[in-house]
Amino acid sequence: MRVGVLTGGGDCPGLNAVIRGIVRKGVPVYGYSFLGFRDGWRGPLEALTKPLDIPAVRGLLPRGGTILGSSRTNPFKEPDGVAKIKSNLQQLGVDALIAIGGEDTLGVATKLHEMGVNVIGVPKTIDNDLNGTDYTFGFDTAVNIATEAIDRLHTTAESHHRALIVEVMGRHAGWIALHAGMAGGANAILIPEVRFDIEQVCRWVESRFRLDYAPIIVVSEGAMPKEGDEVLVSDEKDAFGHVRLGGIGDWLAREIEKRTGKEARTTVLGHVQRGGTPTARDRWLATRFGLHAVDAVHAGQWGMMTALRGTDIEMVPLSEATKELKVVDPSLYAEAEVFFG
Amino acid sequence: MRVGVLTGGGDCPGLNAVIRGIVRKGVPVYGYSFLGFRDGWRGPLEALTKPLDIPAVRGLLPRGGTILGSSRTNPFKEPDGVAKIKSNLQQLGVDALIAIGGEDTLGVATKLHEMGVNVIGVPKTIDNDLNGTDYTFGFDTAVNIATEAIDRLHTTAESHHRALIVEVMGRHAGWIALHAGMAGGANAILIPEVRFDIEQVCRWVESRFRLDYAPIIVVSEGAMPKEGDEVLVSDEKDAFGHVRLGGIGDWLAREIEKRTGKEARTTVLGHVQRGGTPTARDRWLATRFGLHAVDAVHAGQWGMMTALRGTDIEMVPLSEATKELKVVDPSLYAEAEVFFG
Amino acid sequence: MRVGVLTGGGDCPGLNAVIRGIVRKGVPVYGYSFLGFRDGWRGPLEALTKPLDIPAVRGLLPRGGTILGSSRTNPFKEPDGVAKIKSNLQQLGVDALIAIGGEDTLGVATKLHEMGVNVIGVPKTIDNDLNGTDYTFGFDTAVNIATEAIDRLHTTAESHHRALIVEVMGRHAGWIALHAGMAGGANAILIPEVRFDIEQVCRWVESRFRLDYAPIIVVSEGAMPKEGDEVLVSDEKDAFGHVRLGGIGDWLAREIEKRTGKEARTTVLGHVQRGGTPTARDRWLATRFGLHAVDAVHAGQWGMMTALRGTDIEMVPLSEATKELKVVDPSLYAEAEVFFG
Amino acid sequence: MRVGVLTGGGDCPGLNAVIRGIVRKGVPVYGYSFLGFRDGWRGPLEALTKPLDIPAVRGLLPRGGTILGSSRTNPFKEPDGVAKIKSNLQQLGVDALIAIGGEDTLGVATKLHEMGVNVIGVPKTIDNDLNGTDYTFGFDTAVNIATEAIDRLHTTAESHHRALIVEVMGRHAGWIALHAGMAGGANAILIPEVRFDIEQVCRWVESRFRLDYAPIIVVSEGAMPKEGDEVLVSDEKDAFGHVRLGGIGDWLAREIEKRTGKEARTTVLGHVQRGGTPTARDRWLATRFGLHAVDAVHAGQWGMMTALRGTDIEMVPLSEATKELKVVDPSLYAEAEVFFG
Repeated sequence: MRVGVLTGGGDCPGLNAVIRGIVRKGVPVYGYSFLGFRDGWRGPLEALTKPLDIPAVRGLLPRGGTILGSSRTNPFKEPDGVAKIKSNLQQLGVDALIAIGGEDTLGVATKLHEMGVNVIGVPKTIDNDLNGTDYTFGFDTAVNIATEAIDRLHTTAESHHRALIVEVMGRHAGWIALHAGMAGGANAILIPEVRFDIEQVCRWVESRFRLDYAPIIVVSEGAMPKEGDEVLVSDEKDAFGHVRLGGIGDWLAREIEKRTGKEARTTVLGHVQRGGTPTARDRWLATRFGLHAVDAVHAGQWGMMTALRGTDIEMVPLSEATKELKVVDPSLYAEAEVFFG
Repeated sequence: MRVGVLTGGGDCPGLNAVIRGIVRKGVPVYGYSFLGFRDGWRGPLEALTKPLDIPAVRGLLPRGGTILGSSRTNPFKEPDGVAKIKSNLQQLGVDALIAIGGEDTLGVATKLHEMGVNVIGVPKTIDNDLNGTDYTFGFDTAVNIATEAIDRLHTTAESHHRALIVEVMGRHAGWIALHAGMAGGANAILIPEVRFDIEQVCRWVESRFRLDYAPIIVVSEGAMPKEGDEVLVSDEKDAFGHVRLGGIGDWLAREIEKRTGKEARTTVLGHVQRGGTPTARDRWLATRFGLHAVDAVHAGQWGMMTALRGTDIEMVPLSEATKELKVVDPSLYAEAEVFFG
Repeated sequence: MRVGVLTGGGDCPGLNAVIRGIVRKGVPVYGYSFLGFRDGWRGPLEALTKPLDIPAVRGLLPRGGTILGSSRTNPFKEPDGVAKIKSNLQQLGVDALIAIGGEDTLGVATKLHEMGVNVIGVPKTIDNDLNGTDYTFGFDTAVNIATEAIDRLHTTAESHHRALIVEVMGRHAGWIALHAGMAGGANAILIPEVRFDIEQVCRWVESRFRLDYAPIIVVSEGAMPKEGDEVLVSDEKDAFGHVRLGGIGDWLAREIEKRTGKEARTTVLGHVQRGGTPTARDRWLATRFGLHAVDAVHAGQWGMMTALRGTDIEMVPLSEATKELKVVDPSLYAEAEVFFG
Repeated sequence: MRVGVLTGGGDCPGLNAVIRGIVRKGVPVYGYSFLGFRDGWRGPLEALTKPLDIPAVRGLLPRGGTILGSSRTNPFKEPDGVAKIKSNLQQLGVDALIAIGGEDTLGVATKLHEMGVNVIGVPKTIDNDLNGTDYTFGFDTAVNIATEAIDRLHTTAESHHRALIVEVMGRHAGWIALHAGMAGGANAILIPEVRFDIEQVCRWVESRFRLDYAPIIVVSEGAMPKEGDEVLVSDEKDAFGHVRLGGIGDWLAREIEKRTGKEARTTVLGHVQRGGTPTARDRWLATRFGLHAVDAVHAGQWGMMTALRGTDIEMVPLSEATKELKVVDPSLYAEAEVFFG
């Protein structure tokens, strides 16, 4: 059997570890050969391939990124996209596909499966907002990077009696903010799931200063004040003439300065959260996802994806992962609120 | 209500985070006061206390070790131990105890509970071998430290064409070896649960060298060869006249050199695995254990302990944690074997 | 003798290590007592003090920030500033001052020395742009943090075929950019000392993409294109109605996208560069600066500051450090250019 | 011109960065071609080569170890060694050699230069004990790794009221112990240059415990007690029947336990100190050594080696590096003694 492998969407520490796990088990145990597809769904769409054998995966375990490249190409938005993929798979002699990706990539995988392509999915997002699995790989690495940054900011905040805001990834779900904020000892954590009250945030800032400590606020990029989106909109325009919304972190710093009279500074962690070597836990999870994905190929469990449940890897329907986002539960957020202010 | 807190057994990254979680919630939410007991069960036995209020737990989240100190004192081995503890608790006005510890500490807690002391447990072991919980805090930190060491050893092994053996903690269970070995890309992982065949290990070493790579072997301190303990026994004596058994790591290096003719070196990671700042995940788990332990005090769930199940913290009977060790399942070990050799 | 200690200007990893070095030597060896002044020159100006004895400096070595706090207060800009300082020192019985700070703090120290105050200086800047010393502490930490970020960004850049720009600290001197860019394998390093040609930068970007690698550009916050400041100016206004210049990193991303048609993203490292635990080297340098500063008090070397020369700590006149900035030498920058493109 | 490159002796973080620096400058700037020799002097002796061009050095900057391999082969101890080398260089068309190594490797280089081979040296040792240069690359990495380990051990020592001994590399010079001990806040640092008094060490241990802190002792592997070697000798024999001397760290733990009655534990850091990714500073130094080494080839400065002097790279005679070890100066050691006890 010949198995194609592709990685789609934003990159994520652990992608290479999944690829390695697939190949290191599939070749000797099942006698499979593998073909890498480049740049997500663009690979099978345009027959862009890369050899994928055991020598090709040597040394991959600790490496961030993906040797297969990635893209956000969606074959359902390309003319004859699905037909081209089917034809390319046939011509290349590829019997099954392992698609490693997030909501979009697995959404395509789900539809292709329904159209008769043999697909196994591996869920991937540093945001941890995919359903059906306790955690996704890459998330633990992102949380550790953000936590280390918060650790560093504590001392600088206190030396200068400043509020420091840390903007982390998370457009629709606050998992990174919640975990890193809890682990870093933040004095407020603002997430997309719960609209925040800027007046309340300022009270937390002030109560913290009264204790002679400097507040750290961790905010998801997708968090929003109660007042709504409009407060963020200004008539600023960027170099291309587009209206600049400005990041929520910058908005918070300006509001806190204006309302409390204290200095505030923002750090936007950005892409460092998604690059580089994975943590031990992410390597472990990604490797196991790879091993179980190739087992699923062997078992012909098409349309299923790997999932972590407790300490076990299980196979769940791809549709489960993509039906709705996994957001932070209010009771979990309430646990963290003890530490606010 | 006045609540005593103690930490027993070997130290573990995250102990301070548990203590902080307990106090940060217990004081403002439940109106409790807290009393720290020093050095494990020695504290209540000898009435050794330490103030424990909100200022006392500031800055504790990232700090390794335990501000309360630890010991292996067992009150059931002391004359009138239990009576002294009961009397001290009464005189100090302590209504309930939160005991944070491993098998021994929680074993004492179980018995005290049966004798009428109000006890809540928090499981702790870097070895991850306590039952009833998916993971214990400290384990993730230990695995990351061991994985970083393995990462570093890969390059030195290859530059010198040497086999490198890494001895990690784990007397009765191979969790650290298994996770760090998988995450570090080890070519063999030897754990206490499975007696290993030194001839097989040497074949893995040789096959790795044939590929022009240098082998890394991760071994739990409690792993044993098939031939049995006797091979490790020699007539060597240490400075005190005791027969030296020698660590398994050293034994492996000598055997590999003797049998394969290749150079081999051993690194014993030792106490660095259990010290220092916890990973983000361990801080998260430890903090949540602390929060839920104090909730359990409020709910009067005496004789129960906090446990991680999937992504939830649940309360389980203390007896569940201490009835038998949680060892590595053969099927999990079999997953790793794909990478051996 | 009673010696006052203060820290001024932006915080910097190693400040606490200097303070610890001063006290740990000054108390037992010279029999001095110490008094901490809070928040830079505001401390002696307003008689804001903090006890400073051996227990107060326990555990300080690995801690970022400064336990004394900092500010940018300049007593020469306050009415009767110098007179107040002199009077406060006399009333508090302080015979000498150790001032730890950068250009501004040491500039004040220089003038106070000329007006008869017994001052010893310790140079501090993460930017490494103070004259008279080979390096300042904090710089090595900042460079390591920036290098780790660049390491992480390499994999994400290549997975997405994007140019990634890393904006690091350095308004007037490119030391952090040069060192981190060299250590991180940047494909272009842009520093304030050399106006860059955006067309040349785009050619480097394109040549890198042609090799199927993704370019990383490290830029000092103070770097400027040849075309001059005006290109950065837009009619954008921020929330306070001020014209936004925009960071050079954002400007570069927009220009590269516009001119090459490739995606580009910017990461602004910001305050994480100056917070948190110092590297071993910075702890070593800061500790030695502290030890030698208190030796200089004993020797009465008023108006002098500690300086690193090769592997030695020497005393040089305060005026030497503040007369002009230490900028990157063209020959050193030329060394790095081999790696551009 | 065709230039051979080899790396000899123990591996060291930064070796690959030197190789990369040589090739990245030598090819485009001077038009040289390069040939890698494998496994130190064994390479030219047995004509074991490895291609070395720009693609071969991609991605090398952050990688520990050496892609050329290493060995301790000494051509002067092989029959006709020098003649074979000369003949192989001629047959392979190699006009000059860059030898990267420590005392032994550079000693061979010195003699070959005197016998007419065109050699440039690059000094390498993690021990920092080579003369002629302020620092060698790899040393900063080793010191940081040891310092991180000490940071971790502090908390475990205090939680258990134990003395912890950290044995670091350094057979003949105490540089790693001195720097890591200072940076890690050790309570005693024992180095080969100064025979220590075990009674004094025990007094430091006891005074530290009296302050309710736990002592950390950093010891070079080559440190010796005043009583002399004999105290370390016992009649213990290892598995091969050889008398075991035992490491100095283990000896210290036993003596401290015996003499003070306190628990003591030893951690031997071993090979993790020399493996893995170099610090930013070591990458900077190694890269510059590579650039200047190839400049020296161009300038025909045979018999010279690169050296760090302050912030400059200079060329010094190879003989200067190898004439005697650079040991720790007593005045530098005296600086550290302030922190003992």
